[in-house]
Amino acid sequence: MSFSLHEREDTIVALATPQGVGAIAVIRLSGKDAIRLVNQVFKGKNLETAASHTIHFGTIRDGEKIIDEVLVSIFVAPKSFTKENVVEISTHGSSYIVNQVIKLLIRQGARPAKPGEFTQRAFLHGQFDLAQAEAVADLIHSDSESSHQAAISQMRGGFSNEIQHLRSELIHFASMIELELDFTEEDVEFASRQDLRVLVEKLLREIELLIASFDLGNVIKNGVPTVIAGKPNAGKSTLLNALLNEEKAIVSDIAGTTRDFIEDEINLGGVIFRFIDTAGLRETTDTIEAIGVSRTQEKMKTASLILYLFDLSDTDMVEINRDINKLENLGVPFLKVANKIDKANPLFINKLREKHPDTIFISAGQKENLDLLKNRILELVNLDKFRTGNTIVTNIRHYDSLVKTRQSLLDVLAGLDHEVTNDFLAMDIRRSLHYLGEITGEITTDDLLANIFSKFCIGK
Amino acid sequence: MSFSLHEREDTIVALATPQGVGAIAVIRLSGKDAIRLVNQVFKGKNLETAASHTIHFGTIRDGEKIIDEVLVSIFVAPKSFTKENVVEISTHGSSYIVNQVIKLLIRQGARPAKPGEFTQRAFLHGQFDLAQAEAVADLIHSDSESSHQAAISQMRGGFSNEIQHLRSELIHFASMIELELDFTEEDVEFASRQDLRVLVEKLLREIELLIASFDLGNVIKNGVPTVIAGKPNAGKSTLLNALLNEEKAIVSDIAGTTRDFIEDEINLGGVIFRFIDTAGLRETTDTIEAIGVSRTQEKMKTASLILYLFDLSDTDMVEINRDINKLENLGVPFLKVANKIDKANPLFINKLREKHPDTIFISAGQKENLDLLKNRILELVNLDKFRTGNTIVTNIRHYDSLVKTRQSLLDVLAGLDHEVTNDFLAMDIRRSLHYLGEITGEITTDDLLANIFSKFCIGK
Repeated sequence: MSFSLHEREDTIVALATPQGVGAIAVIRLSGKDAIRLVNQVFKGKNLETAASHTIHFGTIRDGEKIIDEVLVSIFVAPKSFTKENVVEISTHGSSYIVNQVIKLLIRQGARPAKPGEFTQRAFLHGQFDLAQAEAVADLIHSDSESSHQAAISQMRGGFSNEIQHLRSELIHFASMIELELDFTEEDVEFASRQDLRVLVEKLLREIELLIASFDLGNVIKNGVPTVIAGKPNAGKSTLLNALLNEEKAIVSDIAGTTRDFIEDEINLGGVIFRFIDTAGLRETTDTIEAIGVSRTQEKMKTASLILYLFDLSDTDMVEINRDINKLENLGVPFLKVANKIDKANPLFINKLREKHPDTIFISAGQKENLDLLKNRILELVNLDKFRTGNTIVTNIRHYDSLVKTRQSLLDVLAGLDHEVTNDFLAMDIRRSLHYLGEITGEITTDDLLANIFSKFCIGK
Repeated sequence: MSFSLHEREDTIVALATPQGVGAIAVIRLSGKDAIRLVNQVFKGKNLETAASHTIHFGTIRDGEKIIDEVLVSIFVAPKSFTKENVVEISTHGSSYIVNQVIKLLIRQGARPAKPGEFTQRAFLHGQFDLAQAEAVADLIHSDSESSHQAAISQMRGGFSNEIQHLRSELIHFASMIELELDFTEEDVEFASRQDLRVLVEKLLREIELLIASFDLGNVIKNGVPTVIAGKPNAGKSTLLNALLNEEKAIVSDIAGTTRDFIEDEINLGGVIFRFIDTAGLRETTDTIEAIGVSRTQEKMKTASLILYLFDLSDTDMVEINRDINKLENLGVPFLKVANKIDKANPLFINKLREKHPDTIFISAGQKENLDLLKNRILELVNLDKFRTGNTIVTNIRHYDSLVKTRQSLLDVLAGLDHEVTNDFLAMDIRRSLHYLGEITGEITTDDLLANIFSKFCIGK
């Protein structure tokens, strides 16, 4: 890590709360001079003598002009998020005021923070490791029970502990073998080759579990890719909107806290389902026959779940059998959903029940049996079946490092099989340690850090 | 004021920062039990024994499940914004987390705050008067130097002091006259009628100034209504976009603090210009001839400023003279703006300079002379010429009360002229006091309060 002293010691400033109109906005500063800089424009108590973790009322002034009445929170290094001096200024929630205050602080000597720079400083000062820092960003973007729990657990160090544990076991062997290198001419063996093999095999099993958990982690973080397939007018849009509106109704009963709804994402029982826009999902120009068309077929294959929706009043048994046959050949889990139960012929319903007893009968328009449908969806994608251990890998960077670690450990095993020399063995072990260390940030490069933190929002 | 004890003592909760993704979000509670309720779900220090104005790190938990790591700020009554116990919880900025924390607090016994309810409680507990409370809302929505200064001044009591001063002078006389009513049979005169006349005339002069300031206040708060008039292809949209983009470029150089730009509003030198969409401003189907059409003419008459824009390469002197003649008849201040100076015939420019020496020559496309244009615009709408005193009335409710006060004071004067009996005089004076008192909230009704605070955002 080659951060210049200057860059690490200067004082950064940014808006920490979302932009837009709200009751309050919080401007955050971090750096050696944070308290002094704010004190220069603050009229109230002398902030430079204030105790850590205290709050002070006063005004921010540009010369004689009052910009706002504010509350200033003081955090004295190292008892702060970044372990530097930190000040949080709580202003009235006007973007005009926020701009004026930030401009004023920049004139006093602060500089605008880069994306993720507060978290980066916290990492560089050892507040937490890299995997935990990344979890902070995941936490901010978590929008479901499951993604939230995964991020909280990672932020609080669950994943990091597991990696540290794997790494420390390997370090012991690595140091023994490196020691042997110093005594190559004496043919000593500080590290038992048999014990090393046992350890590497154990590590490989644990890493395989972590790698396997990424499938679940990916679903948790990005949602279950889902397709509603069906003829035009089967009611695909109606169903999607019915599910979406119910969710909105549930969430928006808490005043002032409506979620930002993402078109075509639905939270069912704490799991996000992301509806893939195959042609026709919205436009109703799509037909189930289009499965035969390779592009649509490819899209449907990327789904983890297909809802096959048909109109009870406008689909015959031949058509249904043919479509279901096609879906079975596709190999993606699917549900048979019969829509417009309110307009159906009871005899046809009976026939359908006989032939396809697992059909779910709904009316998307009348919102009939939507709860039943939701339960069946959740049963089908039962996340627990993916669950391989306590820790879930959600980050593709971690996944990549784990895959590389696996390869290096396999190389160690191969080396043991072929009785390669110590220096080759040591190299492969070091490579394993390197990739594991990348996850928690014990091994980093400036590029890696810049890449990770640039994805954060400004002010974090 | 008839607020039930229950309603004033229960604990309210709301998100205080804007919705959306940010580094942090702040959830605010106020009420007798605010600290106790948060303490029930907080793991860390015991908040109930914490000193006022201190900050505490810990976790918010729903049973064993950790919802987030948070910072909790404690304000012990009466040393808080509402003068009640107040807690601010700073969470990671995810709407999922905010929802979970608020739901949890509601289950503990808090209730969702109504719009403006925190400020309303602050008002009811005497933290500030009504005009100051209203200034808080204005401050949040202020988006220019001038509207911000007007709101800050009002929030800090400038306007309130002036009203209080007027009112207290009148109260003295009112009490004297009321006293005389107790001694009607003795024909005493505690209050000199001549002194009363002098006072009322003085009050009237001051109130006239305040009423007159509303024109300026309205411009400050809502912007200067402006029209760009001109033939299709004169470059109206180009000019508007050039002004808007320059403003964007100036503001967005501060990382993370871009303003929310309102289409067709431009901040020049701290004053907002609101461009009225006369037909054709955007669509370029409008011609200056359309001034003759009554609807367009009406719209143009509502403007405080017209920029008459013409294309130097495509407008002859006859046309220009005819248009300027029409604009002069309209009676709205206007500027003559000659566009596309880069494509003009120098001889025509000379002729134009001779005939209309006040013409401003620009190129909207090349961004030539835009600064000159801005300066001329600011000169023309020179806000100082509206300035009648130090205090500026920006609120239409205050304006209405002032107009009613004026009428009541005129009634007092008329009463003195006609030597009406004391009880009539006392009634008119009381009415004047009533309307003045409405401004600062010494006289209020539940309806009035509900109406005022319902316009606030939730969390304020």
